[in-house]
Amino acid sequence: MLKIVPIVIGFISLFVAACLALYILKKPAGSKKMQEISEAIHKGAITFLNEEYKIIAIFVAIVTIALIAASFYTDMPWQTALSFLTGAIFSALAGNIGMRIATMANVRAAEASKRELREGLIIAFSSGAVMGLVVVGLGIIGVTTFFLLFKENAASILFGFGFGASGIALFARVGGGIYTKSADIGADLVGKVEAGIPEDDPRNPAVIADNVGDNVGDVAGMGADLFESYADSIISAITLALIAAVYSNADVYPLVIAGLGIVASIISMLFVRGKNLYAALRNGLFGAAVIFAILAFIATYYMLSDFKPYYAVLMGLIDGIVIGLTTEYFTSEQRKPAQKIAEAAQTGAATDILQGLSIGMMSTVIPIISTCVAMVVAYEFAGFYGVALAAVGMLSTLGISLATDCYGPVADNAAGIAEMAGLGEETRKRDEALDAVGNTTAAMGKGFAIGSAAITALALIFTFVEKAKEMLGKEIDLNLTSPYLMTGVFIGAMLPFLFSSMTIGAVGRAAEKMVNEVRRQFRELGILEGKGKPDYERCVRIATRGALREMILPSSMAVIIPIIIGIWKIEALVGLLAGATASGFLMAIFLANAGGAWDNAKKYIEAGHFGGKGSFAHKAAVVGDTVGDPCKDTAGPSLNILIKLMSIVSLVFLPLFIQFGR
Amino acid sequence: MLKIVPIVIGFISLFVAACLALYILKKPAGSKKMQEISEAIHKGAITFLNEEYKIIAIFVAIVTIALIAASFYTDMPWQTALSFLTGAIFSALAGNIGMRIATMANVRAAEASKRELREGLIIAFSSGAVMGLVVVGLGIIGVTTFFLLFKENAASILFGFGFGASGIALFARVGGGIYTKSADIGADLVGKVEAGIPEDDPRNPAVIADNVGDNVGDVAGMGADLFESYADSIISAITLALIAAVYSNADVYPLVIAGLGIVASIISMLFVRGKNLYAALRNGLFGAAVIFAILAFIATYYMLSDFKPYYAVLMGLIDGIVIGLTTEYFTSEQRKPAQKIAEAAQTGAATDILQGLSIGMMSTVIPIISTCVAMVVAYEFAGFYGVALAAVGMLSTLGISLATDCYGPVADNAAGIAEMAGLGEETRKRDEALDAVGNTTAAMGKGFAIGSAAITALALIFTFVEKAKEMLGKEIDLNLTSPYLMTGVFIGAMLPFLFSSMTIGAVGRAAEKMVNEVRRQFRELGILEGKGKPDYERCVRIATRGALREMILPSSMAVIIPIIIGIWKIEALVGLLAGATASGFLMAIFLANAGGAWDNAKKYIEAGHFGGKGSFAHKAAVVGDTVGDPCKDTAGPSLNILIKLMSIVSLVFLPLFIQFGR
Repeated sequence: MLKIVPIVIGFISLFVAACLALYILKKPAGSKKMQEISEAIHKGAITFLNEEYKIIAIFVAIVTIALIAASFYTDMPWQTALSFLTGAIFSALAGNIGMRIATMANVRAAEASKRELREGLIIAFSSGAVMGLVVVGLGIIGVTTFFLLFKENAASILFGFGFGASGIALFARVGGGIYTKSADIGADLVGKVEAGIPEDDPRNPAVIADNVGDNVGDVAGMGADLFESYADSIISAITLALIAAVYSNADVYPLVIAGLGIVASIISMLFVRGKNLYAALRNGLFGAAVIFAILAFIATYYMLSDFKPYYAVLMGLIDGIVIGLTTEYFTSEQRKPAQKIAEAAQTGAATDILQGLSIGMMSTVIPIISTCVAMVVAYEFAGFYGVALAAVGMLSTLGISLATDCYGPVADNAAGIAEMAGLGEETRKRDEALDAVGNTTAAMGKGFAIGSAAITALALIFTFVEKAKEMLGKEIDLNLTSPYLMTGVFIGAMLPFLFSSMTIGAVGRAAEKMVNEVRRQFRELGILEGKGKPDYERCVRIATRGALREMILPSSMAVIIPIIIGIWKIEALVGLLAGATASGFLMAIFLANAGGAWDNAKKYIEAGHFGGKGSFAHKAAVVGDTVGDPCKDTAGPSLNILIKLMSIVSLVFLPLFIQFGR
Repeated sequence: MLKIVPIVIGFISLFVAACLALYILKKPAGSKKMQEISEAIHKGAITFLNEEYKIIAIFVAIVTIALIAASFYTDMPWQTALSFLTGAIFSALAGNIGMRIATMANVRAAEASKRELREGLIIAFSSGAVMGLVVVGLGIIGVTTFFLLFKENAASILFGFGFGASGIALFARVGGGIYTKSADIGADLVGKVEAGIPEDDPRNPAVIADNVGDNVGDVAGMGADLFESYADSIISAITLALIAAVYSNADVYPLVIAGLGIVASIISMLFVRGKNLYAALRNGLFGAAVIFAILAFIATYYMLSDFKPYYAVLMGLIDGIVIGLTTEYFTSEQRKPAQKIAEAAQTGAATDILQGLSIGMMSTVIPIISTCVAMVVAYEFAGFYGVALAAVGMLSTLGISLATDCYGPVADNAAGIAEMAGLGEETRKRDEALDAVGNTTAAMGKGFAIGSAAITALALIFTFVEKAKEMLGKEIDLNLTSPYLMTGVFIGAMLPFLFSSMTIGAVGRAAEKMVNEVRRQFRELGILEGKGKPDYERCVRIATRGALREMILPSSMAVIIPIIIGIWKIEALVGLLAGATASGFLMAIFLANAGGAWDNAKKYIEAGHFGGKGSFAHKAAVVGDTVGDPCKDTAGPSLNILIKLMSIVSLVFLPLFIQFGR
């Protein structure tokens, strides 16, 4: 009976999401002009996804064949291929649904805020909630189903599900990240800087691509990222329970916990109300955490013989909150760090950037220590199983935290539509207020996504080692001072640098193409003189092609390197995963927070400090913001996937390493 | 007999250095104006050192007392305090002598290049050679003496020598790094950018401080850094030989090898000649490597029963060359990476900086892989002893490689003096040619310093573990999947981020004070109107105070953190050292190469590309250069010290951890 509960909750989650989606769609979509703009964004986003799917389909086909082949020659169960396919499809589905809704909610939020700010908030938040609930709903249904179907072999097969989710997340994050920033930088450099027209001006040919980018990067990419973390954390907890169960019910426990997190998320969505927008969203987040803690306490009482695993879950929950708040502190324009960057901008772009680098690096300290404390304490309570439970705990309230994340891009789009459709000063101001809150919650969401990726990756590393021991029937020598393992650590730690270098470089190249296209249109079509109309579609196509071409190399690398190292030496692979997780975690926080702080330092100046818009300090801050853009929206988030993906690839191909490795 | 050889070579090294110093001092020092300027730089540099010594004296006194106290309560030999003092004094001495000569050679090089370029090169290079030979001479004399005096206990006592060297290096690098960049940025931001006067203009009040900075940062700092690496690598090889000697003579072998490296360096200095300046220096470097390889081959044949340790030495030698060449490729203005940054500067400062970040990150790949290969192969040949020998091998030709490094700042100063004293277009051009070569060799030297720090730190980590095992009489559990050890890895990997954040922030704060002072002088003294004279001394004092104040916090942290973690859990400490070494190595390369590439991208534009001096691209590249300055000259180099220092602190305080730890 207990085992059915998570599936039931999963369907409830999907049902609520469907209701919210209907609620959004029933809202008026505004004037014809607004609908046209929204339609263009919607179409651009779907075009990108469809093109992306073509590439992903090739990847999925190759991997499926490889998995089937591997099942003949190694101990890998053949069902892994099936679960891989399912994981990939579920992840793609979640991203697709979430993004479709987001691209329909943006115009409705803009229209609603013509009347009232609160209504705009509710529509934008509901759109995020659809994404959040679809992700957790599909995640729990998928994992539980495979767990129930293949009881004895469940662990190995579930790795396939995680791998499928990772594969999609990889392309969504890397491709989406390149898309969104190449469009953004292209639009800004030519439009704002060269031509001197405002942000979101409809004359800018790249403006639709820019708005599409928010959706494919921040909605679909973020959703796929967290779908992966969510599934992986539960899978690793189940696996560790199956390998070394200390409690009866230990294997079902993570599923039930995750299910209760969904219940808590749904209930707490009701708290998202009130005049203070930021407080409304925060109440929802904290409300969910408290409700979850209570529900999990009760479940633990009835399911397990003691409370140790519960404490492990709590450690993860607290760690997530600490990381989120740290991110908020280091990036919010109402706090000292971003204000210090703004102050430094007074002496120019160089000092603005140096201050941001310094703050970004500094911001790694608390998340790292907090995660280490959570890991050690969870381990003391319940061993490696406890570490996996901490990851499950952190992600338990994902339903609502993802809702607040994905709220951001919808609000951003709404503000863009209000500008493009000329809805007037009043509405624009309201939409910008929505957007400002969205920036803060999006920054917190980014921190949370990184933290959950790190702890999930740690849980997967421990799972990998335990599983390898089980399959080999003996201990593995993982002495840190083995030069092979140390080599793994060094190369692993290097990979996030290489990966970030590639993604930042990719944005630069793709943005260059966009810059040239926008310049060409301004020159040839006479848009600025009011003679011609901008060709939005061409810019969308350029961003799409650029992103898809550029994502292939880094993505392949993330899959192939762990397989090569694993066949060489398993201990080197473990070192690689540990090194990559440590350095990837650090780099991701550094890049995300530096980028967020530069962005908000600019906003702080725009709010009238240090000379305000157009001042010397403002120009310097714009440079900082542009540097930060690919850091925070492309390179940083892609690292989340890198560290999880390499761990899950290692788990999936473990039978191969044992068969052919040394 | 064999044991006396290294000491004899050490004294020969000092003798040659003395001859070179006399040769330099005999050269004419130019006009009265030139001598005045040189005197001001000399005085400023000595003032900084003397002020720095006051703070270091406090540090040395505290540590000496702590070491004596520890020798009562733990197994630490009391002579450790003695060797610590000696190491500190030797390191300070080497830095002091090298810098005194450098600040007297600069004016003579400027004067000589009035006549002929070649003569300028020889004087500047000889000044570098004095530094190089004093460092290796004092290093080998110190280590050999303690080794001979305390035979049985030598290892533990020698750690004290390394610690003493580290302590000085820490302050020299961090303090010198902050000094040099705060003066540089202060001089540039107000002088070049705001007032529009050229670089090295005598009207700029910060110009002397800027030139002093080159000496205290790039000469004294670099010298102390490599003195530490040099001593540490030999100490770790001796220790590992004493713990697990496989060969007779294994303990003397590293000393002899190091001695032969000095001989090779002295001989190859004769090759530094010819018209092509860069080729002259490179011939010297490669000549030394070849001569050393031959000499070491012969020594191995007579001393050891097989050649395996020799191959380990060679691996290090080759690794050093690979890292140097990689650095050259990624930073030289004649190569694609820096040129791509210059190209990106055409679309503004943001793209210039993004391209530099991407290239800096990319440049970590080859050094990491090369060092891992060297480590694994050296280990396969001769175990941990082999890894330490690889470090000794890499540093063997330090005499000449340090000479080419320290050549750079002397040439830079010479160009500055030529400008300030108005020596005319011809001489200035010659001095700038000297300077340009110096930039390339300095970049290579930086890469080499980082690589040698990393492999030395690795050797020290292995030494720590072997020593701990020996003292405990049992194995230590260093399983990577221990959450305690993993915590160590994570926190260790975070420290370079924290440390870099602090040093970059420190430069910003110190530079701000300098900016305000230069602005004040321009405003109040009427310098630009030709009414008043700039007050150089005040700027020197401000840079000195700022640097010394700012260096205390990060420096203390580097000493205290490993002690705290070591008392908590030894396995966490090993993780901490490994994590810090991996992440510190990466960050140091990233920061140094990004900084070097930005600098040379600017130079490439100044040479007339993409619009040349004063163009839009040039302005963007200047921003990139300013961002890169503290990265490559403060934060990056300080990380070298951080990783070595934490390892040597761990070794020194190992008896404490065993006594009081868990």
